[in-house]
Amino acid sequence: MTATVTEAAGTLELGTDGQNLLFREARTANTFADEPVSDDQVRAIYDLVKYAPTSANQQPLRIVLVRSPEARQRLVRHMSEGNRAKTESAPLVAILAADLNFHEKLPKVFPHKPGMKDAFADPAAREASARFNGALQVGYFIIGVRAAGLAAGPMTGFDAAGINAEFFGDGSCAVLAVVNIGKPGENAWLGRLPRLDYEEVVTSL
Amino acid sequence: MTATVTEAAGTLELGTDGQNLLFREARTANTFADEPVSDDQVRAIYDLVKYAPTSANQQPLRIVLVRSPEARQRLVRHMSEGNRAKTESAPLVAILAADLNFHEKLPKVFPHKPGMKDAFADPAAREASARFNGALQVGYFIIGVRAAGLAAGPMTGFDAAGINAEFFGDGSCAVLAVVNIGKPGENAWLGRLPRLDYEEVVTSL
Repeated sequence: MTATVTEAAGTLELGTDGQNLLFREARTANTFADEPVSDDQVRAIYDLVKYAPTSANQQPLRIVLVRSPEARQRLVRHMSEGNRAKTESAPLVAILAADLNFHEKLPKVFPHKPGMKDAFADPAAREASARFNGALQVGYFIIGVRAAGLAAGPMTGFDAAGINAEFFGDGSCAVLAVVNIGKPGENAWLGRLPRLDYEEVVTSL
Repeated sequence: MTATVTEAAGTLELGTDGQNLLFREARTANTFADEPVSDDQVRAIYDLVKYAPTSANQQPLRIVLVRSPEARQRLVRHMSEGNRAKTESAPLVAILAADLNFHEKLPKVFPHKPGMKDAFADPAAREASARFNGALQVGYFIIGVRAAGLAAGPMTGFDAAGINAEFFGDGSCAVLAVVNIGKPGENAWLGRLPRLDYEEVVTSL
C-alpha cells in the first residue's frame, strides 16, 4: 500500500518524513473517516500555500468550501456518476476555480507595476493565464492538504459548465477541480498506479 | 527578506523546516550562484514529484533540460526581453511542456481500464486535459526543486509558438513554463509581493 523510500531520496534537502507525507506515502483518498475538517485547518493550508509562485503574482485561485447539505446536493448533481458517492460523504468538499477577472487585484498584489493590469485586458489571454496559474495553485493546494496531515481526493470528472452556472452564474470563475478533503477511511485507496520512468519524461539537449 | 513563521504554522503536520523550505522562505530566484545542477539532482526531484496525482494518472508533463550552449541560445531568443539574461546565465534551464498525446501511454499507467485511452480521442478535450494536468505537475515540480534545496525561477514570459516550433516541431508538446534552476546568487530576489487575504480567496456555502 505504501511506497517505499528508494531512489535518490537522500539527495533531497527535505527530510524523509516530509517526502513521505507529501509525496511517497500520500495517496488520493476515495473514502474518508467521519472526522470534520475545520475552517482553521483550511486557513492553515491557505496560509502555507499562498506563498508559492504564480505569473506576475496573479493568484487566480478561488476556493468554495461546500459545507451545507443543501450546497453539497447542488454540487453532487454535476459530478460524474463515479464521483457522486464520495463527494456526498467526504467531510469537506472544496470547489477550486480560477478567477477570470484576477487582473482587477493586480494593483494590490503587483504594486510596483501599475500597468500590469492592462497587460491582461484581452479576455481570452486572461482566461488562459487564469487557467494555467489556477492549475499551478491547485497543485500547491493538494500538497498543502497533505502538509496538514489530511488526504485529498481531487476530481476532474464533472460537468464544468453545470458547476460554473450553479456556483459562478455571473461568469466570474471557471471550475478547475473539486477536491474531497479529510482523514482517509477504510480501504481508502487501491494499489498505486505506475509512474512514467525518468527516461520517458526527461530529455537533455 | 524572509517570511516569518506566523499564522497557523503549528496546525500543520509538516514540520516548520519543511514549511520554510518549500513555501515560507522559498522564493523565485532571479540570479543564481555559479554551481552546476546535476542530472542526479533532477532525477531525485522527478522521483519525488512523480507520485503527485493527475487525472486518470495521465502524467502529461515532459521536461527538456537545456544544457548545451547551442540549445540555450535556441531557447533564449524566444524568451521575453526581461527573461533573457537570467535564462542565459542560470546553471540549468528546463522547458516544461504538456504531451498532447499523453493518452498513448494510458494503457501502461492506467492498466485496469484499457478503454481509458479512447476517452481522450478528441484532440481539443485532450489538449485541455494535458494543459491542466501538466500545469498541476509544473506546480509539483517547483515544489520538488525546492525540496532538493535549490531555487526555481519559473517564467511564462516567452513566445510559446516560437518555443513549440523550435523544440517540438512535430506538434507533440505545448510549452507551459520555462524554469531556471540553481542555488540562489547575490541579490536573488526583491521583497516578497503581497498575497491575497484568506477572505479574498475562500468562501463557504
